[in-house]
Formats: sequence, C-alpha cells, structure tokens
Amino acid sequence: MQRYGDYYRGRRVMITGGLGFIGSNLARRLADLGAQVLLVDSMIPDYGGNLHNIAGYEERLRVNLSDVRNVNSLRHLVQDQEIIFNLAGQVSHIDSMNDPRTDLEINCRSQLDILEACRQHNVAVRIVYAGTRQIYGRPHYLPVDEAHPVRPVDVNGVNKRAGEMYHLLYCDVYGIRSTVLRLTNTYGPRMLMRHNRQGFLPWFVRQAIEGQTIRLFGSGEQRRDMNEVSDVVEAFLLVGAVEETIGQVYNLGHPQAISLLEIVEILMELCPGSDYRLVPFPEEKRRIDIGDYWGDYRKLREAVGWEPAVSPREGLERMVRYYQEHGHHYWEVTPPPDLEDRARGDVTVGQRSLDR
Amino acid sequence: MQRYGDYYRGRRVMITGGLGFIGSNLARRLADLGAQVLLVDSMIPDYGGNLHNIAGYEERLRVNLSDVRNVNSLRHLVQDQEIIFNLAGQVSHIDSMNDPRTDLEINCRSQLDILEACRQHNVAVRIVYAGTRQIYGRPHYLPVDEAHPVRPVDVNGVNKRAGEMYHLLYCDVYGIRSTVLRLTNTYGPRMLMRHNRQGFLPWFVRQAIEGQTIRLFGSGEQRRDMNEVSDVVEAFLLVGAVEETIGQVYNLGHPQAISLLEIVEILMELCPGSDYRLVPFPEEKRRIDIGDYWGDYRKLREAVGWEPAVSPREGLERMVRYYQEHGHHYWEVTPPPDLEDRARGDVTVGQRSLDR
Repeated sequence: MQRYGDYYRGRRVMITGGLGFIGSNLARRLADLGAQVLLVDSMIPDYGGNLHNIAGYEERLRVNLSDVRNVNSLRHLVQDQEIIFNLAGQVSHIDSMNDPRTDLEINCRSQLDILEACRQHNVAVRIVYAGTRQIYGRPHYLPVDEAHPVRPVDVNGVNKRAGEMYHLLYCDVYGIRSTVLRLTNTYGPRMLMRHNRQGFLPWFVRQAIEGQTIRLFGSGEQRRDMNEVSDVVEAFLLVGAVEETIGQVYNLGHPQAISLLEIVEILMELCPGSDYRLVPFPEEKRRIDIGDYWGDYRKLREAVGWEPAVSPREGLERMVRYYQEHGHHYWEVTPPPDLEDRARGDVTVGQRSLDR
Repeated sequence: MQRYGDYYRGRRVMITGGLGFIGSNLARRLADLGAQVLLVDSMIPDYGGNLHNIAGYEERLRVNLSDVRNVNSLRHLVQDQEIIFNLAGQVSHIDSMNDPRTDLEINCRSQLDILEACRQHNVAVRIVYAGTRQIYGRPHYLPVDEAHPVRPVDVNGVNKRAGEMYHLLYCDVYGIRSTVLRLTNTYGPRMLMRHNRQGFLPWFVRQAIEGQTIRLFGSGEQRRDMNEVSDVVEAFLLVGAVEETIGQVYNLGHPQAISLLEIVEILMELCPGSDYRLVPFPEEKRRIDIGDYWGDYRKLREAVGWEPAVSPREGLERMVRYYQEHGHHYWEVTPPPDLEDRARGDVTVGQRSLDR
C-alpha cells in the first residue's frame, strides 16, 4: 500500500477530533510523514479527546482546543488548510438517544458549519469525512455495500447520514473536494476507556485487563467486522491522496467477521484471570442493536488498493498491550496535568505557531 | 376514494404549517369532515402562512401562532392530539443554499424536537410527515420509486431527508406511528405568491394573471409531475387513516408528466395577453436543477388506493380562477388587518377554546 508516497510531506493538514482515538493515531502517522498537522478538539469530558494520545508528539503537532459548534473559531481554523480530516463527532449511540439535540448539534449542524466555513474561506480544501456504517441500520443482506438502504436505528445514524450528505452536496454544488468513509467498528490504542457508552469493544478490553467478568449481551453470536486503527488511518491517508475518490462514499470492512464471543475468548487468552458470562440484552441496547454486520469494502479496495492488514487476534493483542502499559491515562477522566497545562489558555501546544 | 369515511369526525388533529398552502387546504377539508383542527404556524413573512387561507373557516379552526423552533410551545401543543399532519417547513431550495442554518433549524432540528415532544408527552400520536422528492436529486431512472438513491442537490434536500429519517426512527424505536409522504410539485389555491423562491409554478401563474412575460429557463422541455393540492390533501387523509402505512415512505406523483413549456402554453390560453420567452439558466438555479422528474406512486396506490384525480389543465384552470379572484390577498406581504387582529395576542382564533 502507501500509494500516497510523499504526498503528505509538508502539507497543511487539519484533523477535527484530532485528540480523539482515530484522530490522534492519524495525527501521529501524519507527523511521521512530515505533514504540518493542526489538531482541533473540544475535549468534552465524556468524548474521546485525551492529551495523552499525542504523548511523544507534542512538539510535532499543533493543538487548538475548540468545539466544532463554535462557528467563529472554525471560520479561522479552516483557512489555509490543504486537507481536513473531519473526524469530530459525538460517537455514542446510547447518548444520541438520551440527548438527541447534542448529537444533532455536533454531527449534523456543525458539519454544515464546517462546510460553510470552507465554502466561504477555503473552497479549494480537500476533505475526508468519517462516516459510519451505523447509518445502514439492520442489514438487509451481507456483506453490506454502499448501495444498501439507509435506515438508521438511532439518532446518531440519522445525523451522521446528514453529515455525509452535506459533504457530498458541497462537493457537487461548490466543488469542495470531499470523500466519505463509512467506518465500521474501529479499535486499538488510544481509544476512550472511561465509560462503556462508545461501543462494546473498549469496555471488553478494559474489563479483561482489570480481570473483571465481561457481560456479553444475548448469545454473543452476533458477528461484526472490526478494523484496527492503523488500517483505518491508512484508509484516510490513501483516500486523501487520490483525487478519483472525490465525491464518493466508501465502506470500510474486514474480511474476517468475528463473533462477540470469539472476541471475548481471545481476550480471555490474552488476559488470564478474566472471565465472562452471558446476560440478557438490556432494553435500551436491544432497541438499537443491529445484529450481524459486515461490510463490503471492494469499492475502496478497487479505488485505492486498501486492504486491512491487521487480523482481529493481532489487533486485540496490540490493544491489550497498549492499555496494560498506558491504561492509567485512559481509566481516569482527567488528563495528566503537565500536558493539560500546556494546552490551556493558548491556541498552540508545541513549538510551532499558527502561521508557521 | 375517501376510504377514510367517518374516520376524522370529532378527531383532534394538529397541522404544523397549518396556515400555509397545503396545510390550510388540508385544514379546510378536515373541518368539513368534522375534525377538531388545531393549526400551528409561524407566520414567517417569506413563508407560506397566510390568514386568508382559512377565510370562511375562522370559526371552525383553531390557530396557534408559534414557530416549530419554539420547543416549549411544541411540548404543550402536541399533547392530546390524535393525529399530527406535520407540514411545517422551510420550502425554498434557493433559500436553503443562501441560509443553510435556518433551513437546518426548521427542517431538521425542529423535526427532532417535535418527535421528542411526542415521545415525552404523546407517544400514542399518529404522524404523517410531508417529505419531498427533492431528496432524490437528479433521477438515475424514471419514474423514480422509493428505492431510488438519495442524493440531494441542495441543503433543503439533506435536511428534509434527515426529517423523514427521524420520523421513521421514532416509529421503529419508540413506536410513534409515523408515515412519510414524499411530495412532488404541488400547486393550486392558497399557494404563496409573494416571491419566486418557492418553485417555478406559482410564479408562472402570477405572471400569467398579471399579463407579464414569463421567463422560462433553458429550453422549457424539462418534464415534471404535478399534483393539484386537493389530490395531495386526499393522500394525507387516506394515509392518516390507514394503519398499514405506519413506518412506510410513499412517493406521490401524477401519471401525466408535463413540460414546463406545456404548462406555460396552458397558462397563455387561460390568461390571454400573457406571453413567455426562453432565457438561459441562471447559475444559482442551474446548480440545483434536477432535469426531468416524475415519480412512481404505485406503492401508495396499492396501500390506500390513492390516484390523482386532477389533470394539469384542470388544476391550472382552478388555480388561475382562484387567484384571479383572491390574488390581492397573496400579492402583498401583509394579511388583511381584520383577520390579523383576531390572531394577534391570543392563542385562539375562532370561538373554540384550547380545551374544548
């Protein structure tokens, strides 16, 4: 892969949600590739932003703490960027049902605001937007391709679908060169671990590491595809560099769909002393559960040659190792004070100034 | 038709956008059928609300002036309603591009708010939501059925699509019995005539009546299907009364697709002295024009027996006659002062009180 070669060297790249799980992994990789990276993150306590995610990269990444709901800061931040990886989002499905308006503000209205800011101040920018397979709802067939009917089972799915439609619209009408990636379950280092409202997987990993009993809803036989975050980062980088992907929507996916029970069994092996038990589906989760899901990612493979490189076992092992070492930065709500001090009160973290 | 028989007699029905074009026609019909009708309308000056639309029905309809963006009033208004015909919306495609945030607030966020209000205060309510064929964008095939890909060509289309997805979601998850009708071009008496930003047809009719030269963009050969408003009212009434339509989406349509040029030629006949000329497409309209469109409404026909009864010629004649008589209530921005006085300062217009 790596068909992008030197594409990112010296480029001005902005990542919304840049201190979050996928955003920070992408940021670190972009820094390694020589890009000039600006991270924008709201640091909303319950979301994925975590200053430890850029540990060791503080001098090579610029950070601007701001919420995408703040239109005024957005208007400035988008200027002069060559590429925006637009990853900021409310990602908890349960939270979107309990507080649908906040989900709408972040996943729907702010996306429109970002695009409007680009239309007015940086129409030449390239955008790759992080969509989600959640928009499909319960699969009518498997694997799910991009033409599958869209029938979200939660408010998050509706708003994320609106978010991607805005990107495609601003591409069609104003020529803002956008691409949408519909992510499936992404996992790996730097994922939020403080609560269990952002998907089952991080919570399983945390419980396994802590030697707790994992509660598996239903029979545990639901199968899912999972992408280790380095594969997802690779997809963003490939797509951002290939002009033919503009105006298109692509599924991610993994050739090896795996049951929740199998995932748990791997975790039991990796973390001796942990165990699990099957429990009935809680009502609020059952209502928005989609059963089996795996995506057809052939369109993306054909467009940019993307193929997941990390198997579930390999990825889970990598994730467990990361949190065994760094878990204390993720179990707690408060980021390490030294890092937090550097970010507070100034647009810039790290040595580089905004106009460098 | 009229398979709803006595279904609406005595029922408590709320219509959002009730003083607008379709809302008021529906309200008058419901009053004739003996329903207890509450109209909610924002009376935003550039939108379709017009107190003359309920002339002659003031005693038989209750009016509550409020914007759907006002969550607090909504929370009260939805209570105790048996059926909500949810028609309030920003309907100008051009306005949605010039002011996308307002379109989002009304067509997207307020829809979520209405559904949340129902979930909390009236989960047993029946809702019929006015969607639009605008969500399909440029047709990939004709006639366009409900499975046609959704790729809106304007912000309005994105937000209207989000609006219908919320309705379907709240149906699936919370059991709020919603149905979505995707309207095509609707025309007829009581349509907004004050400006030309809500579709070509009312403007053509006004210009023909006033003996002006109609400017037809492009070749005038674009073909469209058009529903006279009485047919659309019938569709709402049928769907609202048939439980099998719950959770479903239906296209409206007309068997006779007609070119814009043919429409203009009919208008020339009906209004001697008017004429037309072909002019190039203005850029802002060209960008969001969808070319030919006609919808496949078989699904609706099969579900409720709906079939348009009014031909384009008959409908245009009816519309021209209406505005020849009532045009002065529509050319101006200000509604007749006697009607306006009655609505101002009190929740109730007409003799019926809110708790009747």
